[in-house]
Amino acid sequence: MVNKVKEAWAQGRAVVNGWLAIPSAYAAEVMAQAGFDSLTVDMQHGVQDYLSAVACFQGMQPHPVTPMVRVPWNEPGIVGKVLDAGAMGVICPMINTPEQAQQLVWSCRYPPEGTRSFGPIRAGIYGEAGTYFDTANKDVAVIPMIETKEAMDNLEAILDVPGIDGVYIGPSDLGLSYGLKPALDREEPEILRIYERVLNEAGKRNIAVGLHNGSAAYVKKMIGMGFKLATISNDSGILLQAARAAVATAKS
Amino acid sequence: MVNKVKEAWAQGRAVVNGWLAIPSAYAAEVMAQAGFDSLTVDMQHGVQDYLSAVACFQGMQPHPVTPMVRVPWNEPGIVGKVLDAGAMGVICPMINTPEQAQQLVWSCRYPPEGTRSFGPIRAGIYGEAGTYFDTANKDVAVIPMIETKEAMDNLEAILDVPGIDGVYIGPSDLGLSYGLKPALDREEPEILRIYERVLNEAGKRNIAVGLHNGSAAYVKKMIGMGFKLATISNDSGILLQAARAAVATAKS
Amino acid sequence: MVNKVKEAWAQGRAVVNGWLAIPSAYAAEVMAQAGFDSLTVDMQHGVQDYLSAVACFQGMQPHPVTPMVRVPWNEPGIVGKVLDAGAMGVICPMINTPEQAQQLVWSCRYPPEGTRSFGPIRAGIYGEAGTYFDTANKDVAVIPMIETKEAMDNLEAILDVPGIDGVYIGPSDLGLSYGLKPALDREEPEILRIYERVLNEAGKRNIAVGLHNGSAAYVKKMIGMGFKLATISNDSGILLQAARAAVATAKS
Amino acid sequence: MVNKVKEAWAQGRAVVNGWLAIPSAYAAEVMAQAGFDSLTVDMQHGVQDYLSAVACFQGMQPHPVTPMVRVPWNEPGIVGKVLDAGAMGVICPMINTPEQAQQLVWSCRYPPEGTRSFGPIRAGIYGEAGTYFDTANKDVAVIPMIETKEAMDNLEAILDVPGIDGVYIGPSDLGLSYGLKPALDREEPEILRIYERVLNEAGKRNIAVGLHNGSAAYVKKMIGMGFKLATISNDSGILLQAARAAVATAKS
Amino acid sequence: MVNKVKEAWAQGRAVVNGWLAIPSAYAAEVMAQAGFDSLTVDMQHGVQDYLSAVACFQGMQPHPVTPMVRVPWNEPGIVGKVLDAGAMGVICPMINTPEQAQQLVWSCRYPPEGTRSFGPIRAGIYGEAGTYFDTANKDVAVIPMIETKEAMDNLEAILDVPGIDGVYIGPSDLGLSYGLKPALDREEPEILRIYERVLNEAGKRNIAVGLHNGSAAYVKKMIGMGFKLATISNDSGILLQAARAAVATAKS
Amino acid sequence: MVNKVKEAWAQGRAVVNGWLAIPSAYAAEVMAQAGFDSLTVDMQHGVQDYLSAVACFQGMQPHPVTPMVRVPWNEPGIVGKVLDAGAMGVICPMINTPEQAQQLVWSCRYPPEGTRSFGPIRAGIYGEAGTYFDTANKDVAVIPMIETKEAMDNLEAILDVPGIDGVYIGPSDLGLSYGLKPALDREEPEILRIYERVLNEAGKRNIAVGLHNGSAAYVKKMIGMGFKLATISNDSGILLQAARAAVATAKS
Repeated sequence: MVNKVKEAWAQGRAVVNGWLAIPSAYAAEVMAQAGFDSLTVDMQHGVQDYLSAVACFQGMQPHPVTPMVRVPWNEPGIVGKVLDAGAMGVICPMINTPEQAQQLVWSCRYPPEGTRSFGPIRAGIYGEAGTYFDTANKDVAVIPMIETKEAMDNLEAILDVPGIDGVYIGPSDLGLSYGLKPALDREEPEILRIYERVLNEAGKRNIAVGLHNGSAAYVKKMIGMGFKLATISNDSGILLQAARAAVATAKS
Repeated sequence: MVNKVKEAWAQGRAVVNGWLAIPSAYAAEVMAQAGFDSLTVDMQHGVQDYLSAVACFQGMQPHPVTPMVRVPWNEPGIVGKVLDAGAMGVICPMINTPEQAQQLVWSCRYPPEGTRSFGPIRAGIYGEAGTYFDTANKDVAVIPMIETKEAMDNLEAILDVPGIDGVYIGPSDLGLSYGLKPALDREEPEILRIYERVLNEAGKRNIAVGLHNGSAAYVKKMIGMGFKLATISNDSGILLQAARAAVATAKS
Repeated sequence: MVNKVKEAWAQGRAVVNGWLAIPSAYAAEVMAQAGFDSLTVDMQHGVQDYLSAVACFQGMQPHPVTPMVRVPWNEPGIVGKVLDAGAMGVICPMINTPEQAQQLVWSCRYPPEGTRSFGPIRAGIYGEAGTYFDTANKDVAVIPMIETKEAMDNLEAILDVPGIDGVYIGPSDLGLSYGLKPALDREEPEILRIYERVLNEAGKRNIAVGLHNGSAAYVKKMIGMGFKLATISNDSGILLQAARAAVATAKS
Repeated sequence: MVNKVKEAWAQGRAVVNGWLAIPSAYAAEVMAQAGFDSLTVDMQHGVQDYLSAVACFQGMQPHPVTPMVRVPWNEPGIVGKVLDAGAMGVICPMINTPEQAQQLVWSCRYPPEGTRSFGPIRAGIYGEAGTYFDTANKDVAVIPMIETKEAMDNLEAILDVPGIDGVYIGPSDLGLSYGLKPALDREEPEILRIYERVLNEAGKRNIAVGLHNGSAAYVKKMIGMGFKLATISNDSGILLQAARAAVATAKS
Repeated sequence: MVNKVKEAWAQGRAVVNGWLAIPSAYAAEVMAQAGFDSLTVDMQHGVQDYLSAVACFQGMQPHPVTPMVRVPWNEPGIVGKVLDAGAMGVICPMINTPEQAQQLVWSCRYPPEGTRSFGPIRAGIYGEAGTYFDTANKDVAVIPMIETKEAMDNLEAILDVPGIDGVYIGPSDLGLSYGLKPALDREEPEILRIYERVLNEAGKRNIAVGLHNGSAAYVKKMIGMGFKLATISNDSGILLQAARAAVATAKS
Repeated sequence: MVNKVKEAWAQGRAVVNGWLAIPSAYAAEVMAQAGFDSLTVDMQHGVQDYLSAVACFQGMQPHPVTPMVRVPWNEPGIVGKVLDAGAMGVICPMINTPEQAQQLVWSCRYPPEGTRSFGPIRAGIYGEAGTYFDTANKDVAVIPMIETKEAMDNLEAILDVPGIDGVYIGPSDLGLSYGLKPALDREEPEILRIYERVLNEAGKRNIAVGLHNGSAAYVKKMIGMGFKLATISNDSGILLQAARAAVATAKS
């Protein structure tokens, strides 16, 4: 299977990403029909673990969405497991140094570009069984998160690590790191300047930049600003907001 | 625990009901925070079974919503199981005759009013352990579905069965039975006349009438018409619709 | 595998039975090490369904306890499924007539003694694979519950149905049926007279009698009275009582 | 989605069917890549229940296999649930009379051909959402099992029930009913005569005949004999046999 | 929600803690009604993982017990996940150096006191959604385990790490480290001297000391000695012991 | 329970090992009846996590197979958890240095030979409860994987780490590390020379050597070559291959 996220990036297009916190293949099936280009199972803050991620992948597989995972931590065991399960992109939190970014790349790439162990138990299903190995290093998107002051201090060095396809900004943690409250859809000028600097430096290196957002309106704006991977809230957040609005209307 | 649905009905108020198709305690926790008065686990058409219903009940229990179930069929085994699990209301599909309604009541009530077997494994948690038996026959809401021409032909006889607290109309099946396409939020005059007849006959007997709806706006209208249990779509339907709208906005 | 319950009955010995309401193979493993002769997964009032029963069977299989199930209802589908899963005894609630008892026997026995369908997916593991069929009709214990006034009115006719190995009394439902409160370990003379009558009539026919109990002390007394299958509370009841006592001691 | 089983039957071709007893979406994914035309989740004798059937459906959906279910019993609740979950064929055990066959058809067809309740929660995914209703009565295959002497006595009457697409023979139960041992791949002349009679009577009415088999070689022979739905053992049987052979080779 | 464990400690009171090894929300519901002040899901030695811990939290949430977790290891990914899931206390095994203790504190606290990433998916439910961030650093109890000779050698340095609320002693591992057999409820003078030293040094710093125990009687004694977090065995241990005693009584 | 793998090795015999990728206790039961000496739950590349490994252990426990795990990574938390769950052998991927091998040994052994924490929640079931500790350090097999050029460079130093019982070669990763394609059942002379060197060096130290294989025929050959732990493919691979062959035969 072609990684449509990387294909879009190669063509300069942005992708709209969904975020799965509900540990249910059926909920993933529902999200997979909503028009997202990709769906990311959030194993860090979502109510997800490895087997629920597999179930979500099974739910989304018949649908034209690229399966990705945010892993809970930069740990080779779990990175390998989600790739074997079929993830075509790995978003990894709290990458603050080039050494950490290098470790992430190594975990995602087969030798000689990395140290990933071979055994694509479900991932082999996406392509012809025998050809997964031939294209995996090229197809898998490696996406460290830039979300601390330390990461910003090391920005160029992190972006210079070979093998990085994109970076992803977590606005809440970024804000915390700069002494602000956690929030999405931020408008503080100091934060927007950070976004611009990341877009600029990544752009020089042909690396896509992603952003976690709270609303579709802000997503639209940020795509206009140059972000190439823009997430809208998550499944449970969308559900809660919509259900609250419906109840309010019904009771009005 | 007081059954807030029956309390509202006793006071002449309508309740807004949520509908759970996603088999996940976490999704139920989300829905339980949206402002619904009650949440019904849909074991008939939802992706639910007994243990997922228990999980949903566990997810909603800390929240002020009344737990209910739509059982898959009028079968004493499953009716007893969901009541023991803590359901305070049982909506049962396809009750077309007074005999079927009588069977449903028997399954929901302890002797001498019925034949329910004693063993409220989780339901005992809601009240003081020792007092569940004393109030269960009064607290549990028995709600047969009126959704066929045959049921309408037997309407008065069904409503006359002692122990019925409410009836619930399924517009899709009702339409099918009258030769129409399945749909919610119907506006056909012949269907609205049926609604009026049910509201009228049930009203005479102090029985509440519920309706399954597709939109919050229609719910509001139907509450105005006299319905006392008005469901808004279901969790996966609300999620799909809201996610589609968000993607459309983001990509616009 | 020999059915040790039927073996004990053949030798005139009573068995002490455990009762599983917690849907966990690990909890079943724990109970399987406590010394019970048999363990019954309670699919009627316990927090159990078919797959959790299978898991409990897997947990208890290495241990010398006979696996049994209380089915939720006298329904051929579920009776067949639990037997195929390896149950060596089926306790069925609310058998009030000889016709219902006959239906239960049919569901548990292969032709020509019954109508059970062949496919012992896990049950074949217990004996030599090829020999399960040869002994199943003899090994499986069929145990209808006698727990209503109607059943007592039909007692002799029920006991006369060929193929019944034992009957099991549910004291709470029996009491309800006679206008009393639900309770275990009953001492009302009218109830004890019922127990005596059942013991007497069953004894004449070489049918064992079982009883659900709340305490080990009462179990001991009832075994003395002639009961041959005596259950002590259930796993969650034993856990709650013991945990409460431990907390009370710790805080005293 | 087109029902490829019915398409093949319309063209006079036989389909080779796989049988799922392992309650795992991943095992279903594996079986879905083996070349079967259809896969049937066995909820009667397999280690399967409703939610595991849904998981198996999710596992097989990206692959070109038609999803079917053998339900545990001819009970409207479970028949409706598996159809809503996406089953395109329902095999139902122990249909011995035309009345039972009629009940099965009613459970599988929307009015006016039957009494199925509308709510195709996952089934709507297969076609365009809005069009499922329009084609479901035509697309769903209704397949009662003929597996007793009583069914053979009523054969013509059962086959004359409108709405039956196929019948499925269970050789073990059929044998039991005629006083033989349970077995697949039978060669007794009296059984083969039964097969011929069923093929003949069904053929007159344009109804396909299926058969459960133990080996691929027998499947091939039976397709030659005229069977149009031929199942090869089941997933766990194939696994056990192949693993045993591999160990034997390794240790030889 | 107030952290009742920290509230008790602030008032100089001890809390009695339950320990969950059974991976079942229902078993957690049972334990939550037994009178414990807090319940700790044991992800190190219990039969628990992340999603079973979430289920246990859902089971205990309606009840007045403080939810805690013993994590399997001092790894930032899992510490963050259980806090996001709603844990109000984290007990971490094998903290032997101040550096390890510092890492644990960092994982548990938002900046600037630590490096915890923001996304309290379920934890937000406990307080007002918007206020979780404001109080989390104060509410969450950070509790390293002191259970080796190395940890005792570094005791003061570990206790001096800012942000530690309590320490928890594991008697089996502590004994192993000193060349003794694993055991709870120890009486060896050398071990009791260690307990006294920990109580003394922790007391100077206003840090609570916890202890894992095998019996309620020993818990009572240890609370008298000054321990402020005293665990009684675990759910499966209590169940096994009580079930064994019941069977013994029944068979006596 | 005796560790039959270590017993065989002590007697110079090879064991044939099965490999579990399907997360199902029932699939494990099936594999446990196929004649394997040991079964390894593959938590690295299989569709397995901790709780599915526990379920597989429960499924295999009544059968005479030694339970082992391949952990996802050399991380003390998960190594401890699978041992507590009852694993009698731990295969650990990507051990490239003696320091990594030492860490693995420490995680698997109680003091003074290691740093494993005491709490054998299920493992205690295998032996007499009280005696598990006495024999665990001797019974548990510690098996690092040798599967990179770096590991080969450090071979003697790794093998010299006290406490290693066996090493296990992963042919795909080994090949990748030497610039070859991933494959099992390799015949390249350079790879066979590596096998010989490992067999030779391990043999000097009385350490068994294992190998992952794709076919039973190659297993037989490799046992002849001196391998003492020879794995045949995995459950899903065996199933896929056998199902494909059966379909091909049926359709031929």
